[in-house]
Amino acid sequence: MQNTGDVTRRFGQRIKTLRVEAGLTQMALASRCNLDRTYLSGIERGVRNPTLEIISIIAAGLGTSLAALFDY
Amino acid sequence: MQNTGDVTRRFGQRIKTLRVEAGLTQMALASRCNLDRTYLSGIERGVRNPTLEIISIIAAGLGTSLAALFDY
Repeated sequence: MQNTGDVTRRFGQRIKTLRVEAGLTQMALASRCNLDRTYLSGIERGVRNPTLEIISIIAAGLGTSLAALFDY
Repeated sequence: MQNTGDVTRRFGQRIKTLRVEAGLTQMALASRCNLDRTYLSGIERGVRNPTLEIISIIAAGLGTSLAALFDY
């Protein structure tokens, strides 16, 4: 079974990749999602373990679906 | 933006569908994932909001990837 620390790290990298591709700063994405920028930064660094609801809010903020978000 | 209650409800339905397709009881999947059966039941009913790490453990327990889990 994949090491769970690895899961949050890879998820964080995915969020950062999609955010940069969308041309958004952390601040811009955080405000779209009504999240604190430092919390979003923690997710991107893989040191946060977001819930399904937060993940779905971030997907919406990136203008993508959960399926596309996890397609990595 | 999708209503977050809707997200947990649809996710729960997805888990149940994949579990039944895999021929697993809730008890069997819960023990594979080292989760309490009642917690897994709550996820399937959409009344729990699991974290990314729990979601990845359930995907592994179902023998699938996060990408396939969210492909609905």
